[in-house]
Amino acid sequence: MPEFFTLASPQDAVARLLSHIHPLQDRERIEVRAADRRVLAAEIRAPHPLPEFRRSTLDGYAVHARDTFGASEALPAYLDLTGEVPMGQMASFSLEPGTAALVHTGGHVPEGADAVVMLEHTQRSAPGEIEVLRPAAPGDGLIEVGEDVQKNTVVFQRGHILRPADIGGLLALGITQVEVTRRPRVAIFATGDEVIPPEAQTLPGQVRDLNSAVIALLAERAGAVALPQGILPDDFETIRDRVDTARDQGADMVVLSAGSSVSARDLTARVFNDLGKPGVLVHGIATRPGKPTILAVAGGCPLIGLPGNPVSAYVQFVMVGLPPIYRLQGAQAPRSAVLQARLTTNVASAAGREDYLPARFRERDGTLWVEPVFFKSNLIFTLAAADGLLRIPLDSTGLQAGAQAEVLIL
Amino acid sequence: MPEFFTLASPQDAVARLLSHIHPLQDRERIEVRAADRRVLAAEIRAPHPLPEFRRSTLDGYAVHARDTFGASEALPAYLDLTGEVPMGQMASFSLEPGTAALVHTGGHVPEGADAVVMLEHTQRSAPGEIEVLRPAAPGDGLIEVGEDVQKNTVVFQRGHILRPADIGGLLALGITQVEVTRRPRVAIFATGDEVIPPEAQTLPGQVRDLNSAVIALLAERAGAVALPQGILPDDFETIRDRVDTARDQGADMVVLSAGSSVSARDLTARVFNDLGKPGVLVHGIATRPGKPTILAVAGGCPLIGLPGNPVSAYVQFVMVGLPPIYRLQGAQAPRSAVLQARLTTNVASAAGREDYLPARFRERDGTLWVEPVFFKSNLIFTLAAADGLLRIPLDSTGLQAGAQAEVLIL
Repeated sequence: MPEFFTLASPQDAVARLLSHIHPLQDRERIEVRAADRRVLAAEIRAPHPLPEFRRSTLDGYAVHARDTFGASEALPAYLDLTGEVPMGQMASFSLEPGTAALVHTGGHVPEGADAVVMLEHTQRSAPGEIEVLRPAAPGDGLIEVGEDVQKNTVVFQRGHILRPADIGGLLALGITQVEVTRRPRVAIFATGDEVIPPEAQTLPGQVRDLNSAVIALLAERAGAVALPQGILPDDFETIRDRVDTARDQGADMVVLSAGSSVSARDLTARVFNDLGKPGVLVHGIATRPGKPTILAVAGGCPLIGLPGNPVSAYVQFVMVGLPPIYRLQGAQAPRSAVLQARLTTNVASAAGREDYLPARFRERDGTLWVEPVFFKSNLIFTLAAADGLLRIPLDSTGLQAGAQAEVLIL
Repeated sequence: MPEFFTLASPQDAVARLLSHIHPLQDRERIEVRAADRRVLAAEIRAPHPLPEFRRSTLDGYAVHARDTFGASEALPAYLDLTGEVPMGQMASFSLEPGTAALVHTGGHVPEGADAVVMLEHTQRSAPGEIEVLRPAAPGDGLIEVGEDVQKNTVVFQRGHILRPADIGGLLALGITQVEVTRRPRVAIFATGDEVIPPEAQTLPGQVRDLNSAVIALLAERAGAVALPQGILPDDFETIRDRVDTARDQGADMVVLSAGSSVSARDLTARVFNDLGKPGVLVHGIATRPGKPTILAVAGGCPLIGLPGNPVSAYVQFVMVGLPPIYRLQGAQAPRSAVLQARLTTNVASAAGREDYLPARFRERDGTLWVEPVFFKSNLIFTLAAADGLLRIPLDSTGLQAGAQAEVLIL
């Protein structure tokens, strides 16, 4: 137990790593429609106000609000109907006091008018005349020019991660291209004399490399270009040279899932320290699974050494591997998607250590429950059978059955 | 207020829609590495057990557990060191009682041995001999063949949405290709005489179509191929013919964001009823924003009529447009990513209606707070400025400041 207090907390580990990483300076100009999840390289200002003209929010009649004051079902306000504003065009007239004009939702509210009365609150009395049955206040039923966005307002800051709704906002302003930060290139290695490619038939004693593919997919989800580099033997020179070459060829970040033994992990630390300053920043993180993770930086390039165990590698890459990918893009990692659920059972932990347990949801009596998938040694199908990772906080010695717990969605 | 009780609840509306939709029968065989978020068209069984050989979970010594019973620091068990198992190979020997063999994490545990003792619990006493300082139970420090997955176990059901960890599991089994359901083709139309493409300069009275692009991005995130079809005038024949053509050309689902006026929305319902049976299933959903949403099915093809307002269209498409996309793939829509946060302010609602308010997170004193972005009429930059949508449940008349609330992440 006490050993965990000598390890970095996950939060400190990430902070230490990020303090040495600067956003990429390369930008590219791309179509807004293809910019989902990309990061803005420059702030964006509204080239014109939204809406560009005063729009009705109702189907109804544009009026002078003052003409309707005191109107009721018993004592309606009578107004002369002077026309209709067609959709897609501006009214060709200015509204005189004592008159009303038919407008549709989203249509232009003519000059002179200062409110729109809902159709349901009016009545046609005689040809060319309407009765207004309820009073309208100035501003009712319309949005003013610039009420959504004023011209020149900063609508998105540099570093903003674009989402579908944001792309909608840009298109509403007629912005069809944006400057985004180049996608960081992440070189991914697996090491271990027992590790073979997934395509290969295993010989006795061998296992297939799944970490490279899983890390590649997680990195791409975060906006990176993943460059899997294959499998290396547990050999200092080979690993150092290949990582060095990957950086020369333009990798912005390197991830290495180490062989499983202690000596293989120590090799990773030696390689990272040999590659440049400041070298290894964190050697061991107070989490389970994934304690032996190594974080380093060499010449601004983040170097992540993950444990070989697939569940450990997964959890650790999500915790400490994604934040630098966002930082390289000039963004902050978004909040993880979590669900709150009630624990079906007691779960033990150690204070000073953050635990992540593969867990399954169950719905019962309208309540969302979460049940840890207990396992012996972080088997990959424990994770594949899980809906998410149950988080037991750093300062907790465990959670009671029935307690609300946080589950990171896989 | 009472009108909401005559409208379908969001849950009922989706259930009614899904009851008429069948999964696509077309499959395609793709590389597992490219299958992130795709849906399995057939169950997958393990072609061999995992692990394939008995593996050590430690750096240590393979032993006969019985030889270590009663061992302690004061009275160690002395064992003859007979060899080392190299990584990536099987032990070439069977372990005799009274002996031990060095094994590395992930390495093969030789025949005869039934436990692995952690290196830290041993000591080298003399050449060719070790002292074991703690007893080991049979099974300690190793995982048996098939302990992760037995041969022929169903590891994923048909309809499972693949995630990175799942892809890792498949690769561990040497499965590098999978059968997935074809991606559904979603034809997307905007209608409205005032609506122009985002690329065009607005003339007075016109607005740009942003809904088509936003819906396309949301649909693609759910696994669809989005086919934006442009903008149609508010004309029955034109809309009907174009939707019909899109279906003839292979659209599996059609989405139409209607012009903003009531008459434009009624047009949508008439078109949908004209296209085939059963026609319109839901006309109006008890939500805000987005009440006037129309759900229909014609010949197995889901037809979704969204309000023209961009925030309404967004919220409604997420609520009722994504589930049929998953259904067409033979999958269930995954649980929405939500965060729990405390409300900064009171929020009113109406019982019988589900409200979604654009809202922003704030972190204060280590607590996550959520603050609604109040708005007049569902302006797009209200949504773009938001972190998520604050949900006020159907049966609630509002939420109090300080209450825990659910926020769907945008």
